[in-house]
Amino acid sequence: MTTPQPLRIGMIGYAFMGAAHSHAWRTAPRFFDLPLEPQLTAVAGRNASGVQAAARKLGWASSETDWRRLIERDDIDLIDICTPGDTHAEIAIAALDAGKHVLCEKPLANSVSEAERMTEAADAAAKNGVFSMCGFTYRRTPALSLAKRMVEQGRLGSIRHVRAQYLQDWLSDENAPMTWRLDKSKSGSGSLGDIGAHSIDAAQWVTGRKISGVSALLETFVPERPLAGDLVGLGGHGDATGNAPRAAVTVDDAAIFTARFDSGTASAGANSSSPIGVFEATRYALGRKNAMRLEVNGTKGSLAFDFEDMNVLSFYDAAEGPDAGFRRIMVTEPEHPYVGSWWPTGHGLGYEHGFTHQVVDLVNAVAERRQPEPSFADALQVQRVLAAVEASAASASRWQEV
Amino acid sequence: MTTPQPLRIGMIGYAFMGAAHSHAWRTAPRFFDLPLEPQLTAVAGRNASGVQAAARKLGWASSETDWRRLIERDDIDLIDICTPGDTHAEIAIAALDAGKHVLCEKPLANSVSEAERMTEAADAAAKNGVFSMCGFTYRRTPALSLAKRMVEQGRLGSIRHVRAQYLQDWLSDENAPMTWRLDKSKSGSGSLGDIGAHSIDAAQWVTGRKISGVSALLETFVPERPLAGDLVGLGGHGDATGNAPRAAVTVDDAAIFTARFDSGTASAGANSSSPIGVFEATRYALGRKNAMRLEVNGTKGSLAFDFEDMNVLSFYDAAEGPDAGFRRIMVTEPEHPYVGSWWPTGHGLGYEHGFTHQVVDLVNAVAERRQPEPSFADALQVQRVLAAVEASAASASRWQEV
Amino acid sequence: MTTPQPLRIGMIGYAFMGAAHSHAWRTAPRFFDLPLEPQLTAVAGRNASGVQAAARKLGWASSETDWRRLIERDDIDLIDICTPGDTHAEIAIAALDAGKHVLCEKPLANSVSEAERMTEAADAAAKNGVFSMCGFTYRRTPALSLAKRMVEQGRLGSIRHVRAQYLQDWLSDENAPMTWRLDKSKSGSGSLGDIGAHSIDAAQWVTGRKISGVSALLETFVPERPLAGDLVGLGGHGDATGNAPRAAVTVDDAAIFTARFDSGTASAGANSSSPIGVFEATRYALGRKNAMRLEVNGTKGSLAFDFEDMNVLSFYDAAEGPDAGFRRIMVTEPEHPYVGSWWPTGHGLGYEHGFTHQVVDLVNAVAERRQPEPSFADALQVQRVLAAVEASAASASRWQEV
Amino acid sequence: MTTPQPLRIGMIGYAFMGAAHSHAWRTAPRFFDLPLEPQLTAVAGRNASGVQAAARKLGWASSETDWRRLIERDDIDLIDICTPGDTHAEIAIAALDAGKHVLCEKPLANSVSEAERMTEAADAAAKNGVFSMCGFTYRRTPALSLAKRMVEQGRLGSIRHVRAQYLQDWLSDENAPMTWRLDKSKSGSGSLGDIGAHSIDAAQWVTGRKISGVSALLETFVPERPLAGDLVGLGGHGDATGNAPRAAVTVDDAAIFTARFDSGTASAGANSSSPIGVFEATRYALGRKNAMRLEVNGTKGSLAFDFEDMNVLSFYDAAEGPDAGFRRIMVTEPEHPYVGSWWPTGHGLGYEHGFTHQVVDLVNAVAERRQPEPSFADALQVQRVLAAVEASAASASRWQEV
Repeated sequence: MTTPQPLRIGMIGYAFMGAAHSHAWRTAPRFFDLPLEPQLTAVAGRNASGVQAAARKLGWASSETDWRRLIERDDIDLIDICTPGDTHAEIAIAALDAGKHVLCEKPLANSVSEAERMTEAADAAAKNGVFSMCGFTYRRTPALSLAKRMVEQGRLGSIRHVRAQYLQDWLSDENAPMTWRLDKSKSGSGSLGDIGAHSIDAAQWVTGRKISGVSALLETFVPERPLAGDLVGLGGHGDATGNAPRAAVTVDDAAIFTARFDSGTASAGANSSSPIGVFEATRYALGRKNAMRLEVNGTKGSLAFDFEDMNVLSFYDAAEGPDAGFRRIMVTEPEHPYVGSWWPTGHGLGYEHGFTHQVVDLVNAVAERRQPEPSFADALQVQRVLAAVEASAASASRWQEV
Repeated sequence: MTTPQPLRIGMIGYAFMGAAHSHAWRTAPRFFDLPLEPQLTAVAGRNASGVQAAARKLGWASSETDWRRLIERDDIDLIDICTPGDTHAEIAIAALDAGKHVLCEKPLANSVSEAERMTEAADAAAKNGVFSMCGFTYRRTPALSLAKRMVEQGRLGSIRHVRAQYLQDWLSDENAPMTWRLDKSKSGSGSLGDIGAHSIDAAQWVTGRKISGVSALLETFVPERPLAGDLVGLGGHGDATGNAPRAAVTVDDAAIFTARFDSGTASAGANSSSPIGVFEATRYALGRKNAMRLEVNGTKGSLAFDFEDMNVLSFYDAAEGPDAGFRRIMVTEPEHPYVGSWWPTGHGLGYEHGFTHQVVDLVNAVAERRQPEPSFADALQVQRVLAAVEASAASASRWQEV
Repeated sequence: MTTPQPLRIGMIGYAFMGAAHSHAWRTAPRFFDLPLEPQLTAVAGRNASGVQAAARKLGWASSETDWRRLIERDDIDLIDICTPGDTHAEIAIAALDAGKHVLCEKPLANSVSEAERMTEAADAAAKNGVFSMCGFTYRRTPALSLAKRMVEQGRLGSIRHVRAQYLQDWLSDENAPMTWRLDKSKSGSGSLGDIGAHSIDAAQWVTGRKISGVSALLETFVPERPLAGDLVGLGGHGDATGNAPRAAVTVDDAAIFTARFDSGTASAGANSSSPIGVFEATRYALGRKNAMRLEVNGTKGSLAFDFEDMNVLSFYDAAEGPDAGFRRIMVTEPEHPYVGSWWPTGHGLGYEHGFTHQVVDLVNAVAERRQPEPSFADALQVQRVLAAVEASAASASRWQEV
Repeated sequence: MTTPQPLRIGMIGYAFMGAAHSHAWRTAPRFFDLPLEPQLTAVAGRNASGVQAAARKLGWASSETDWRRLIERDDIDLIDICTPGDTHAEIAIAALDAGKHVLCEKPLANSVSEAERMTEAADAAAKNGVFSMCGFTYRRTPALSLAKRMVEQGRLGSIRHVRAQYLQDWLSDENAPMTWRLDKSKSGSGSLGDIGAHSIDAAQWVTGRKISGVSALLETFVPERPLAGDLVGLGGHGDATGNAPRAAVTVDDAAIFTARFDSGTASAGANSSSPIGVFEATRYALGRKNAMRLEVNGTKGSLAFDFEDMNVLSFYDAAEGPDAGFRRIMVTEPEHPYVGSWWPTGHGLGYEHGFTHQVVDLVNAVAERRQPEPSFADALQVQRVLAAVEASAASASRWQEV
């Protein structure tokens, strides 16, 4: 048993995503056999005392206050970008140009043009064995990963319907404070890019088909919100007083759209019609805390998933005849994706495990010098769907090809 | 205790809806105190032996082979129309003109113009104490009726989101036989009018708001189907052989659309934005048998309903704070709508009870000489939404005002 | 098509059970093809005006104030006993002796000795083509009937575990009024006989095995309750004032017991151990309205049922391997027991349908001159289990053979 | 910000529990502010290469092949016992005598006498500021912790019913291999001590009441099982061939019992009856993977929990009147126990988080020099319940005081 070579990580940003990524880097080698050993080499953030405290807390060996310095350091192999979307393009391109692998949080960028430039940089780097990946972590939830496997096994037959909802409620209170996620210049979009992007990626990935067109409606329910100190993260329970000065919300609060998927590269045949889909993303679905739901209906079977019950995948197999029914699969068996490295049957996983699995897949791909998934190109395609949604919404919901 | 005056019923059609209506007329006076006593006077159908057998089986005192004869008979007070949509206008207008009350199955008609003429006739008749009602029976499911009550009580606050799905799967098999429901000349439309109409009516009724515009997509997955004898009812399990001659399906198999609701007549105020909605109707959602679902999110609370669990209404009350959660209300308490006349707490009702409740409400309205709900005007508005959906779908999903 | 011969019914009692039975007699021939035509000939009750009103309301052609008169009438073929348990033995034996078929509500009697005498009378009558049946209607819930079918098909393999709960909460309020169901002289026992008896019958019937021994605990939480007029039916929401005089509760409020089942007459083999079971019956499980639950685990599969979701049966098939899961079968397919005579797929049934199905099965058995099930002998066996439970509870839970 | 003092851990055993504990020690300080900093100083196990590999994998700085050596080392402050139950007493007493704090996995011991000796040692050590704790981790599941809080807040009123099930199925296959958990000399008992002990502890802890007596039935369904190499952990999917030699199973496969709880130290009053309970523990409930369920019914409210949906607590509040219903609380709010240190609302936790929370509570108690819970005395009481269950089962289920 030889000690694996190190993979030295430099992470930028240390808030919600930074904590999740740090946990993943620390934890992955404890449960999985990795071909490279991740080392938490350095974390970067603008605030010196903040980043030092984060380094200590999250387990990073050193810290920097300028992300450029991180890229310059030659003891770092991979840059992990956990900052808001407006910074992704610049950082990722610089890192790739410097020969660092990149893991970039989603959405890939705040515009298609940024995403295109990032994808060009990624493609160029890949030729030199420098790889990049976008953090659509929900793919690594075992239940969704099993969903994809079942589609690939043909257990759904030809797919007809997709319904995808991502429902949260943390903005329901109109006095919940302003955050950077509501500032278009930082976040690019609102519910659409923050959570809708997850639904789009998951729907395309699980079905193996791309969205080819959309018709959309965007809505902003609360046009301005109270300022409450720093524009941190995910807001909260509307603790701001009614008297606080208010700032304009410049993003969508909710996004709803219909979609068509391409007909896939699967076998041509009598049933060649393409699937249709309904999407909804909102932070105003009172009572729904993190209901990232995906339901797929095919000619042979159906699947349903809800992240609020994340260790379960429901599957309907029409071949079972009159006694068929949606089967509540506890996705906690050793045969299920990622699960064998964790606990015995029935001992469920949590939110952060998706990040650990993401690291596992990334480290394996880097070690084997192959493209990890989702690539920047995959994420660019999601970005194009986001742009089509916005374009359709801006022109009276007219159909918009992606 | 005096015997109530009779209300003599003549019913046209005796298939699925005819059986349900007959049960309702027979059963309503056994569980509810009615001001008029329904009498099952006559049933009409074109096939003499068929209608005679139906009369015997369903409990009607006599039968006719021409619906016009039913309208001519002076021992009939109310005409109950249970035929396909292409016949509704002619029958209903004739009946109203003849001074008969009318109960007409939904959708009201196969076109807006037909529905407009019917509404004119209904309005004219109402001035003479002759009333009409359209059979959107889902309103009479106790759980949906409780939903409306809770909205009216203000327990949801201002409404932001509606998501309505009506998911069935009885056409999933591409060899399931052709039925009149797939023939546009009979049924007017497919999933849209057959089941989507229920969702539209329920969403508008529960929220107290009308849909003001839509953007839609219609899809026909299986363009032709095997002929199997009579084009009866609801098809089945695809028992037709592959060799049978096939007929063209001329309606939508699935309808999906986004919508805006009007901002209501409720209190004006800071939160004046109108609700948005997502609708889906399909008979291809494999595994969903009769999932007529409605979820409504407001500023104070949320509601969720699924007809597959029809005795339950889920309610979320944000005032409960961190320990809030969707509350699974068994809508089987004597205080709940209609329930007190049935069984003890917890002893659930079934599908047909909605029809019995419909009869109860209709008989009470007729006896009290007031307009029953939903009126033909209400149903006309639903018809206009259906037409807007079709218009939007026909022009690249562009936004269509209702 | 010939008109079937009549089966003339005389019913005794017209409260909760009387209303349910009347509905069944009226409705069965409307949905099922019966070989005999039930006629609601007469209803009996002690209060003249009450029974007359009931006859009118429930659809009976005549009424009597003495049940003996009903038995004397030669225009009655079948006596339907819907009175409290203390009257069952006398009525049933008299009816059988007079050559009337008997349908008797459960529990069969208030003691084993009464039940033995009734069974003797039933066995004697059966030799003369006069039949009797006990009203364990839950057997006729399609989902439970499907459960039995699946066990018989061997889909569970050898059974190991039974867990049966019957949870209600209508006595949770200690001020809910006294009812005859809490008076041992009327009801025989409390939760045990009222609802526990259903669980015992269902568990034995579904598994095909008899309970051979028990160890039990009975508890009375509220020893006396306010008197509120007549000791009617199912009480209510504790509307009695605190000052009302109180009467002693003389029955159990809750019954819990462990059990062994016999090893069945099935194939002998390596796995010959007998199933074990856990039972609970209570009216104090706050929030559970009519949770009649049954779960059965075998070597190949498992079943779970809850009457609060009565149109669903959950089934687990171990042969499906790692992707197995409890399958939520909507028991609304035409292939499912009783369902084909009702509505299309997915349109659920309610509580009273079990009574209609009971009538269907009874009428068919009488017409075919064969013993209907459950027989009085079957019900006597349940009575013996009830007695064993009481005996065990009375002697420090020691094991009691049935 | 000063660096906290270290708390140097020595762990014995490195299988399932060892992996879980290691993760907790590593992770706790990353998400919680701890007054002492846990250091993974050494792990002990008999197999030299095995323990060295485990140390590397799990993050321990050194390893030992004799647990006694661990206790001798003066660079260790706390001994964490993750071995089978037959070794607990010797190790724990030695550790406490040596002045080391002790965290001991459950069940505390394999007999009451061992547990008594351990408790004596613990009590003596506590006087010197050396503390001990037993690892009933389910207490640290946020939903169960919230359940306890709600009971303490009086939201359930007086408790009447407890029903506790711990259902697994990993032994359903009679060819699943023999493991040490089925060898009484190692494990003490079967389902009873392994999983039933969790139910007993949780039921007592949540309700704040002790079990005072039981009536029990134990069953062994499969009397011998194939040997498959080492008698490791949790067995599996019956992969052993039919021809392998078989060893006797010397423990219970399933344990079912009724129970009474003491009437608590709460306010005396009219409603002084003690709660009754039903318990079941089995590894043969096919389809149930880790269904650790607890339901509690009181006079004002009810709670229900199932570990298969571990981020949810269901709560019924009778004060809500007819619109009450079991409320599905997503226990993922910052106000919920332990949750604020993790992810945003709705982002669920997994099985291992309970271990992390256990470490957090233990470290805080040690730092504050107060007794952590559950103490060895608490665990001894659970052991007495286990012994009473076995005694009752051994004498025809007769009632056995604890």
